[in-house]
Amino acid sequence: MYEDTPNLSFVLRAVHDTVFEERPIPSLRNEHDVRVRIMQTGICGSDVHYWDKGRISDFVLTTPIVLGHESSGVVVEVGSQVTNVKVGDRVAIEPGIPCRHCDYCRKGSYNLCPDTVFAATPPHDGTLSKYYLVASDYCYLVPEHVDFEAAALVEPVASSANMVRTGDVRGGQTVLIFGCGPIGVLCQAICRAWGAARVIGVDVVQSRIDFAASFGGARKEDVYCPPKKPEGMGQIEWSETLAKKMKNDLGLGEGPDVVIEATGAEQCIQTGIHILHKGGTFVQAGMGVENVYFPISVACVRALKIFGSIRYSTGCYPEAIRLVSTGAIDVKKLITHRYEFKDAEEAFQTVKRREEGTLKVMIAGVPDQQ
Amino acid sequence: MYEDTPNLSFVLRAVHDTVFEERPIPSLRNEHDVRVRIMQTGICGSDVHYWDKGRISDFVLTTPIVLGHESSGVVVEVGSQVTNVKVGDRVAIEPGIPCRHCDYCRKGSYNLCPDTVFAATPPHDGTLSKYYLVASDYCYLVPEHVDFEAAALVEPVASSANMVRTGDVRGGQTVLIFGCGPIGVLCQAICRAWGAARVIGVDVVQSRIDFAASFGGARKEDVYCPPKKPEGMGQIEWSETLAKKMKNDLGLGEGPDVVIEATGAEQCIQTGIHILHKGGTFVQAGMGVENVYFPISVACVRALKIFGSIRYSTGCYPEAIRLVSTGAIDVKKLITHRYEFKDAEEAFQTVKRREEGTLKVMIAGVPDQQ
Amino acid sequence: MYEDTPNLSFVLRAVHDTVFEERPIPSLRNEHDVRVRIMQTGICGSDVHYWDKGRISDFVLTTPIVLGHESSGVVVEVGSQVTNVKVGDRVAIEPGIPCRHCDYCRKGSYNLCPDTVFAATPPHDGTLSKYYLVASDYCYLVPEHVDFEAAALVEPVASSANMVRTGDVRGGQTVLIFGCGPIGVLCQAICRAWGAARVIGVDVVQSRIDFAASFGGARKEDVYCPPKKPEGMGQIEWSETLAKKMKNDLGLGEGPDVVIEATGAEQCIQTGIHILHKGGTFVQAGMGVENVYFPISVACVRALKIFGSIRYSTGCYPEAIRLVSTGAIDVKKLITHRYEFKDAEEAFQTVKRREEGTLKVMIAGVPDQQ
Amino acid sequence: MYEDTPNLSFVLRAVHDTVFEERPIPSLRNEHDVRVRIMQTGICGSDVHYWDKGRISDFVLTTPIVLGHESSGVVVEVGSQVTNVKVGDRVAIEPGIPCRHCDYCRKGSYNLCPDTVFAATPPHDGTLSKYYLVASDYCYLVPEHVDFEAAALVEPVASSANMVRTGDVRGGQTVLIFGCGPIGVLCQAICRAWGAARVIGVDVVQSRIDFAASFGGARKEDVYCPPKKPEGMGQIEWSETLAKKMKNDLGLGEGPDVVIEATGAEQCIQTGIHILHKGGTFVQAGMGVENVYFPISVACVRALKIFGSIRYSTGCYPEAIRLVSTGAIDVKKLITHRYEFKDAEEAFQTVKRREEGTLKVMIAGVPDQQ
Repeated sequence: MYEDTPNLSFVLRAVHDTVFEERPIPSLRNEHDVRVRIMQTGICGSDVHYWDKGRISDFVLTTPIVLGHESSGVVVEVGSQVTNVKVGDRVAIEPGIPCRHCDYCRKGSYNLCPDTVFAATPPHDGTLSKYYLVASDYCYLVPEHVDFEAAALVEPVASSANMVRTGDVRGGQTVLIFGCGPIGVLCQAICRAWGAARVIGVDVVQSRIDFAASFGGARKEDVYCPPKKPEGMGQIEWSETLAKKMKNDLGLGEGPDVVIEATGAEQCIQTGIHILHKGGTFVQAGMGVENVYFPISVACVRALKIFGSIRYSTGCYPEAIRLVSTGAIDVKKLITHRYEFKDAEEAFQTVKRREEGTLKVMIAGVPDQQ
Repeated sequence: MYEDTPNLSFVLRAVHDTVFEERPIPSLRNEHDVRVRIMQTGICGSDVHYWDKGRISDFVLTTPIVLGHESSGVVVEVGSQVTNVKVGDRVAIEPGIPCRHCDYCRKGSYNLCPDTVFAATPPHDGTLSKYYLVASDYCYLVPEHVDFEAAALVEPVASSANMVRTGDVRGGQTVLIFGCGPIGVLCQAICRAWGAARVIGVDVVQSRIDFAASFGGARKEDVYCPPKKPEGMGQIEWSETLAKKMKNDLGLGEGPDVVIEATGAEQCIQTGIHILHKGGTFVQAGMGVENVYFPISVACVRALKIFGSIRYSTGCYPEAIRLVSTGAIDVKKLITHRYEFKDAEEAFQTVKRREEGTLKVMIAGVPDQQ
Repeated sequence: MYEDTPNLSFVLRAVHDTVFEERPIPSLRNEHDVRVRIMQTGICGSDVHYWDKGRISDFVLTTPIVLGHESSGVVVEVGSQVTNVKVGDRVAIEPGIPCRHCDYCRKGSYNLCPDTVFAATPPHDGTLSKYYLVASDYCYLVPEHVDFEAAALVEPVASSANMVRTGDVRGGQTVLIFGCGPIGVLCQAICRAWGAARVIGVDVVQSRIDFAASFGGARKEDVYCPPKKPEGMGQIEWSETLAKKMKNDLGLGEGPDVVIEATGAEQCIQTGIHILHKGGTFVQAGMGVENVYFPISVACVRALKIFGSIRYSTGCYPEAIRLVSTGAIDVKKLITHRYEFKDAEEAFQTVKRREEGTLKVMIAGVPDQQ
Repeated sequence: MYEDTPNLSFVLRAVHDTVFEERPIPSLRNEHDVRVRIMQTGICGSDVHYWDKGRISDFVLTTPIVLGHESSGVVVEVGSQVTNVKVGDRVAIEPGIPCRHCDYCRKGSYNLCPDTVFAATPPHDGTLSKYYLVASDYCYLVPEHVDFEAAALVEPVASSANMVRTGDVRGGQTVLIFGCGPIGVLCQAICRAWGAARVIGVDVVQSRIDFAASFGGARKEDVYCPPKKPEGMGQIEWSETLAKKMKNDLGLGEGPDVVIEATGAEQCIQTGIHILHKGGTFVQAGMGVENVYFPISVACVRALKIFGSIRYSTGCYPEAIRLVSTGAIDVKKLITHRYEFKDAEEAFQTVKRREEGTLKVMIAGVPDQQ
């Protein structure tokens, strides 16, 4: 299928309806553009969500889109104003290009720009093509010793870096992170790299707990698997009870300084609010149900600070590349499955099955024509 | 009943069970203490809550306490180290004295000190006595032209100032405030005094809306009375719909910069989250139900900042006294009922009835013996 | 001279060497561009500096440039993507368009972008032309009742707003501002509009002091004219002595919360550092000599915060327009001289003479051809 | 000399005039007090300054004081309200007890409290006694495996932690630190422990450079020894030239994110200002001459942030103990000289001589009487 394919792309036409299309090679749109030959792409829950449900929040699949947004590749063409990369450079791609003109962009909150062209977010095409266009300032050189798989996974590291930044985590702090999937363990590793005194990962799946205890400088006492809610106890009551039990089991005193919630699960959100010490910081990073039953009164009387984290901010990509390239974060340990480009749908099926032990699934780029 | 009363006090023994007691005149506990002859006390919802329910959150009435915490008076005795006030001075009292030794105190978050002795919060006595002891640094001189009623009401002004500070309201911003009771209209007035470009008060009671439109520099277009939820529509859906309608009706574009929620009502909380522009700030200041159904996903993807506000911070009292004494806030317009000390229980009944038109209820101090 | 002048421009060729040139009408460079017919331009010290000296810091006049950067006008042409203004709209122009691609731009510090095209900063042309091109997001609608003179003076208001923001001035604070020229009095007015409790303007020229006392809500006690340095006393010693005297004369206790230095004079800088209370904030806004003798030890042991302010940040222009259009700042009171376009050089001579009583000098736009 | 010495103390009576005095054992002043048997004391430049000059800034030796303020010891008596330590506990002492009542204390800036009782700052006695009284919340438990020398040196680690905090150093940043004495290398080590990407120590003494390169995780490329100023070049010009050279030599691009100036030397201050990228942060931590010639114009147009750092803030001591006890900072490597209590004056002479290779000089506590 790779013959005569100028820009082979993996396209989602409708829910569970994908196809390989031969698309034209994209032309640079302006002098700042860069064309990248895609080499590796990681699959993220949101990619699978569009494939499986056709929408996330206000973003609805109404026209076909190319999937994929965690990608690395090689620069094959640059616009006349591009100075940071050149043809042949190996790069990681930040997958959302903001409008640069709205007040969000002007004040530095480009992650909030409503006109961002974000890869694989309807109606914008993603990176699961042979070639992808990106603005040069959203295209980052990676060192030679970082391979394309690791370079593709700079994306979740950058996204996690933004979560930890949002929580304003400082040297010496105690951080509790709900979720030991890829984002959860990356947040844990980043907190450690940035000097947190104590970082604890929480999950209910033992294999994830085990992985978390072996990743990013964690020790075996840095993870916690909460018990099940007792029969007959209400969930909010259990959340409060569990928060007390966790503080006791983990020796957290009045509670952690920061909670990063990377699951989106109602019980984790509730427990996370109850467990913080007064004046503590809660970051909502995981996406789950739209609305949850929430201990607002505790948030008020304890003067908590609660922040939502979305996408990236300036500097997240360079720092993520540093963390990956210095070995502070061995991001390739996250990879559990690898697929050829032609087997892209199988990759999506694998993520969808959510079997224990599945962490990060990679899809290789379109190979050269032989 | 005022004869032979060294320190007549209005004591809550149990729910709805109050009594006047003759207590001893308190002795200074240390060289920083000040003894104040109480002249006026405002009644706050929390006072009534203890009288009516016997508890607020973790604070449970188990032993009798004197009620009252919004008070002004005259200094009648000072410790040897007191320099900021002297006998005869007219003062406003900040009603919570923190421990000064815990990490919350040391880092300036004294409002979070777990060992604060807060007036009329079990097991601590309040200010509805002839005399009350307070630490000198929590005792503030008021100018001659500010009478004792206004001086007592410095307390809700200071509490509101902390809410506005928590919201980090800046010159030129748009602020939406849910609630047009005393705290709501004070927050509105403070936002205006501090340079907010547009301040809108929201309430469902028309008389409160009318009062808000006449208070603190408000114009008639600075208030909003939302329509009722349509029959058959779910509340969370209505909250989202109402948020859009309010933005449209009020010409708020993407939404206000800051929402201060001063009701504790679930629908206001939900609407407040939905109405903010991305990156906006939400302050939970009102105390209502413990848990609410909450649009956490919106908070996450819009990168909202949500803060709880409780009590006061350094500088709130001096600034509140400035706002009152310069006339920026005519706090006496809030007073709708005035009672003699001997009629204190009637004052509580009045607040409890929550009749339309009731805003602030005052109780005079114990008069001189004749 | 106005006949057959498609785009008459006032050009600085070299120091004191200006000429009127007939330049071509500029074409829109991209779909976001707006062409403005310039109606009024205020003259700023920096304009005169280039005319008089040929350089400011690293910016050196090597090729001819059009002068002027404080301008208002009427939109006469818009690019296809422009939505915020339309032909015929009356606008204020923010005179620096950043690159939108560097890290300064991406993180919201567009005032620091090294590739900003700033009007009348070599080698970029300014606004003293019949027509000027500006990016639409740096072009702001002004209400009908704000005339073109006031609209042109939105520029110094916006610049002053950035200084006050840089000082993080809050409701209730005490602010001391060195300098009662246009920028100084605008900073004073903005601090008042944003709720500062006490704002004091300092200058050594009595006419400026008198003007400051009549501007922006000032009272006569809100200005201070320091005495001369006694013969034989060193300047740094005098600065420390003067700081103590000012605190005493003005009843500032431990010192102001914020100092905004809008003169660039060494003595003001020294006095400003000495007068702050511990932990206070100093903003360097005035441009004077490159290096000054500076009390660094005081800055250290008093844990001062010292910030430089340059140009504008997101939101400064809209807020400046609000302050001007609501009448909070009567910016036209600053105007002391008005010139026709053909008399532009005379306008520069007037500013250069720095006679007492000269504040803001305006130059009208190129008139219609008759 | 140790016989019959209830509380042998090393007292400075006047410049270079010290004596051992037998003072009474101090009684607890209140229920929060702790009496500590001093075991080790580090000597700091400020101790020597009082001994050598009799004053630092406004603090003048007018009555005899006990010297010393970097101490550890064993708790021998506790007040009735003390809960964090008990008799027999091994502790580090934070040597300044603030008043707890002023606005600085109330808002968390206790390091600025003018009424702090700071050890060995006139007129307050220091810790070079057999026994020293300290408030319990300024007395910190150290783990068993941290010996008394290391525990005494928690003080400079805590002081350095406050400097790094003041610079708001974040994970991934580049930090340049002027000075490779004890404070300089501790700042460098803390920046690394808190995740800074690149930390460079600068000094003109080769032995200090060599030590810095071997301390706190530094690599040999993490230090810089600047060349001497060329003959005939002015110092300010050299500072600017050197800043450019350093950026080039070190590959710092636009400059570091943060400079921490830990020398107090004019040339370091000037170079530090010139080397920062726009918007960067400069911390003045070193104490040298009172006034320096300072590039204020650069600070203005580059929108720098300049902060003074003094003493400690809440949490510095616990974090310093963590860094020392986990081995992140091997503070004992700083110790170059050890003296018995009876040889205290010799210890001061050693520090005074400032020989190359001298870093930290320790004085043991008064031994048990035999």
